[in-house]
Amino acid sequence: MLGGAAVHFSLAASFFTDVRPVGPVGDDFGAAEFEVLEGRGVQTGDIERVEGGQSFFWRGRYEYDLNVAHTEDTQLGVFGEFEPKLSTEAKAADTLFLANIQPDLQRQVRAQCEAASFSGLDSMNLWIDTAKDSLLAAISEVDCLIVNDAEIRQLTGESNLARAARAVIERGPRAVVAKQGEYGAALFTPESFFALPGFPLDDVRDPTGAGDSFAGGFLGYIDGHDGELDEATLRQAMGYGTVLASFNVEEFGTERVSKLSREEIDERFAALHEMTQFEPLPVR
Amino acid sequence: MLGGAAVHFSLAASFFTDVRPVGPVGDDFGAAEFEVLEGRGVQTGDIERVEGGQSFFWRGRYEYDLNVAHTEDTQLGVFGEFEPKLSTEAKAADTLFLANIQPDLQRQVRAQCEAASFSGLDSMNLWIDTAKDSLLAAISEVDCLIVNDAEIRQLTGESNLARAARAVIERGPRAVVAKQGEYGAALFTPESFFALPGFPLDDVRDPTGAGDSFAGGFLGYIDGHDGELDEATLRQAMGYGTVLASFNVEEFGTERVSKLSREEIDERFAALHEMTQFEPLPVR
Repeated sequence: MLGGAAVHFSLAASFFTDVRPVGPVGDDFGAAEFEVLEGRGVQTGDIERVEGGQSFFWRGRYEYDLNVAHTEDTQLGVFGEFEPKLSTEAKAADTLFLANIQPDLQRQVRAQCEAASFSGLDSMNLWIDTAKDSLLAAISEVDCLIVNDAEIRQLTGESNLARAARAVIERGPRAVVAKQGEYGAALFTPESFFALPGFPLDDVRDPTGAGDSFAGGFLGYIDGHDGELDEATLRQAMGYGTVLASFNVEEFGTERVSKLSREEIDERFAALHEMTQFEPLPVR
Repeated sequence: MLGGAAVHFSLAASFFTDVRPVGPVGDDFGAAEFEVLEGRGVQTGDIERVEGGQSFFWRGRYEYDLNVAHTEDTQLGVFGEFEPKLSTEAKAADTLFLANIQPDLQRQVRAQCEAASFSGLDSMNLWIDTAKDSLLAAISEVDCLIVNDAEIRQLTGESNLARAARAVIERGPRAVVAKQGEYGAALFTPESFFALPGFPLDDVRDPTGAGDSFAGGFLGYIDGHDGELDEATLRQAMGYGTVLASFNVEEFGTERVSKLSREEIDERFAALHEMTQFEPLPVR
């Protein structure tokens, strides 16, 4: 079914700002798939349709508690030959998300978006294993690394997450987001630490795309936010990332997020706030 | 070295209230070990010293990220023949913690503490596998289950943690604390959900006893707190549990907590508060 990092990210970010995904699709990505994106106002002009090609395909299964995914099949399809050439509009983006793909491709896109004042990057263990130097170069060129906590450890060779995040920050990014599945997400900056639990849900149908929906809520809110990108804004962005990820997993594929409203998002943001607050000054 | 659930719990709780551990030790538990407890004001009158016996012993190793423990050796020692007989003072306790041990023993202690207005219980996968009915009976007799999240899933046969916690609450407890290692801890009640991340540390030396130190901070604060045991108090107790667990892991055994001050605890509580707060009302 419809999925992929760019799709999940774009739908999530569309509630906060204008979104323009860049990437190739095949013949199997037709009017119905475009309609899911365009129905949320996503600008599809930089989606390149390759005649006779097949869209990127992933199939996997999850362990009992849905925290661990096992890949059963990956087909690069049209991504195998992709050379990103961004439109003028895409190049003018204020905020950039480099979704998980070969890091040389990420760097090519990054180089074409000189105007971006805030950029985030996702990656995975495959690229740490097979293209580490290129990935480290890509990371040094972005403002925020957004990956799973185990990947931050693997990337830096540092088992302690706080140290590992600092080692990433020393390479350039001013923020590191450690995604932790149902446990939530943590934000490291040079001066601060912040963490949120995953939003508790009675029914989790499909975790696929949750990380990209998190990134979409997080970076979408940052892009849509007026004023300085301060710690308070980053924390709220973490809240929106958490909320969008939680909606993502309630149904398969894009089913839930494509039907979502901003009111539902803000309601859940308020509920998340209530679930994480406690009194600062205990009576002795 | 010195350890064990009752020791870690007692030291942590001693910063908030009077603590009286109940349990047997062997000849190897001598003046130096008593001094660690008594140095923190722990009342040792219900620690039963068995002549010629050997104290409970555990040895294990941890995985790379310190989240998973593997047992290498367990020797029950004097716990093999233990029959709890509580002193008048112990029986009068307002707050009771049943540390992880065979659930029939937990029930015997629970039955002797009729005065307790709040009781917590820890357990482990071993008892779910070998004494499930007894464990379920023990759980139905306490106010709060405090176990690892995977154990809540295993106990209830429910992969979703929110549903699993509700299934526990339906058996009697009015609260469930899911311990999640470095990811923190979550509190479920019939009406609410609350979660805190683990306190971020640059150096984690030894996770052994962290869960018991959490329980000590949590229940110790509850016992020492004046007034109603409301949601706000439970949340603050979660904060103190988190803080005590974080100190526990900074050094081996009881080294860090036995030298701790209430000022250090309150400072870290305030830092934890700062790390978890965010603005509720984003500008649209």
